[in-house]
Amino acid sequence: MKCKRCRGPAVVEVRRHNASFCQPCFIHHVHEQVKRTIKSFDMFRPEDRILVAVSGGKDSLGLWDVLLDLGYRASGLYLGLGIGDYSARSAERTRRFAADRGAELIEVDLAGEYGYDIPTAGRKGSRSTCAVCGLSKRYVFNRAALDHGFDVVATGHNLDDEAATLLGNTLRWQTGYMARQFPVLPQREGMVRKVKPLHRLSELETAAYAFLRGIDYVVEECPLVGGNTQLRYKAAMNTLESTSPGTKAQFYLGYVEKAAPLFRSEDTADLAPCERCGQPTTGRFCAFCRARAQILGQRLGPPADADAVGDQTVRELSEEVMPAELFGGSP
Amino acid sequence: MKCKRCRGPAVVEVRRHNASFCQPCFIHHVHEQVKRTIKSFDMFRPEDRILVAVSGGKDSLGLWDVLLDLGYRASGLYLGLGIGDYSARSAERTRRFAADRGAELIEVDLAGEYGYDIPTAGRKGSRSTCAVCGLSKRYVFNRAALDHGFDVVATGHNLDDEAATLLGNTLRWQTGYMARQFPVLPQREGMVRKVKPLHRLSELETAAYAFLRGIDYVVEECPLVGGNTQLRYKAAMNTLESTSPGTKAQFYLGYVEKAAPLFRSEDTADLAPCERCGQPTTGRFCAFCRARAQILGQRLGPPADADAVGDQTVRELSEEVMPAELFGGSP
Repeated sequence: MKCKRCRGPAVVEVRRHNASFCQPCFIHHVHEQVKRTIKSFDMFRPEDRILVAVSGGKDSLGLWDVLLDLGYRASGLYLGLGIGDYSARSAERTRRFAADRGAELIEVDLAGEYGYDIPTAGRKGSRSTCAVCGLSKRYVFNRAALDHGFDVVATGHNLDDEAATLLGNTLRWQTGYMARQFPVLPQREGMVRKVKPLHRLSELETAAYAFLRGIDYVVEECPLVGGNTQLRYKAAMNTLESTSPGTKAQFYLGYVEKAAPLFRSEDTADLAPCERCGQPTTGRFCAFCRARAQILGQRLGPPADADAVGDQTVRELSEEVMPAELFGGSP
Repeated sequence: MKCKRCRGPAVVEVRRHNASFCQPCFIHHVHEQVKRTIKSFDMFRPEDRILVAVSGGKDSLGLWDVLLDLGYRASGLYLGLGIGDYSARSAERTRRFAADRGAELIEVDLAGEYGYDIPTAGRKGSRSTCAVCGLSKRYVFNRAALDHGFDVVATGHNLDDEAATLLGNTLRWQTGYMARQFPVLPQREGMVRKVKPLHRLSELETAAYAFLRGIDYVVEECPLVGGNTQLRYKAAMNTLESTSPGTKAQFYLGYVEKAAPLFRSEDTADLAPCERCGQPTTGRFCAFCRARAQILGQRLGPPADADAVGDQTVRELSEEVMPAELFGGSP
């Protein structure tokens, strides 16, 4: 195999592009893909302050690495989830990367700031561990970006992640979620802009990039993730990909190009500030505050107008499967 | 296991409905499902003449059986595909069913009427065997319905068929195909109404129905179908269904209910009569006439205006991957 670009000996094959690359040319290829993605979706400009959500894994450290190499003002945000050794190792790799690159790293500890860790949340709440983890991350990333004055949050979602998520959303025709599964979500009141600059790169490409760049990342999967639905969707996509190479790219990139516009009208959420934290939500309290209250066994409130509490509150909250004991006493 | 309806010993379990049935109650269940489907999509009325496309398999003979039991005016159409013993056995089962039920059976022989059989078409044309077979069936069913004055063509597609087809269309976001993947396609100029009354029943249900009704159907798969993409999509859906029962129904029925309206605007085809056969098409010649000409090594034409032929024709036809020899001589 020869490198497509320089004809030297190749080390990586990208089957979907029908191309092989040597180490420096592969890194060039990844940089070019990311540059083109940032440009074509107008994700951010050189003067923007970017907050990269980093987990210590190949995708997020790889993304941070690319953005720093391309000269962007990219700081990292590490969220401590409290998942034992796994979190300890992830934090340590992230800190070392930041130190090596002389880049700013912001750390938030979920237990320290919000009073719970993910293993507890998975046991105590009504949501699955992965669901409450995703919710916590989205909330904290957005909040930290606002608090520290960043223009945009960048996440390391790759093509495999996006294709699996889209498959899950599509199998249930969750049209509202589909409307928001796009490589750029524009800023709106209380919500910072979100971008996914790696969405055109496969998991194999992001792994090869991190390896070839010598990034010391956490290889192991989260120990709590075993058998989750996202992994089953990835497996289904991999099976289809193995007999028809290009299926994943066709599915996700085809969605972005051809079908996403048809779903745009389904993103109809009317947002107002959460009565507890002020972050935007469609209900009275945001999903994060509701989940957190449930995990901590707290009552949500106090309501702005005590006389107005009653059936309405109970009905609204119980739609979110809140256990009855949270409403302690009669209204 | 007890029958959900009469509490007698059950013989079939329908996991998706969380119900078991004895033989007569299962047959009642299938009749009810079909009745409800016909009504809710206003598929046809008692006075309509229905042409059931029958292959000799469980789904199409089962559908014909249900419609006759429900008192509809249902004739069968059998299309001889010329696939050796498989076609011979299918024809024989179909004829026997029609004779037993005293129902009208119309037969069309593809080789006799149109000059080719499916094995030849698969070898000679540029389309896959399954693609040219599907195209031939759609064409002949529509044409026969028009020629014999039927109001509607009914096919035996079940939930598994529809979910697999939808998965294939969705993975490629073939939005025009998606717009037309609906349980009822209304009549339009030159196109008879098409309906799929079994689309809410799983393959397991249609197989159990045919078995319990004692229908003598062809069990074997078409010998040419091995490893086709439709089977791969069915396998993918079955894998997802095995860990999340209800996935297929949620995917296809959810599409029909929630997402199909979003795709309606994508069905933008402007139809005009095919210059060779008069059937509606988006181009100058319909896909069937183009495929047939290719298989038979014939030149399409003569064009209405010989002077107008030239680059335009060549370009239009070559988009359909027509081999150059069909255009014999200079224009």
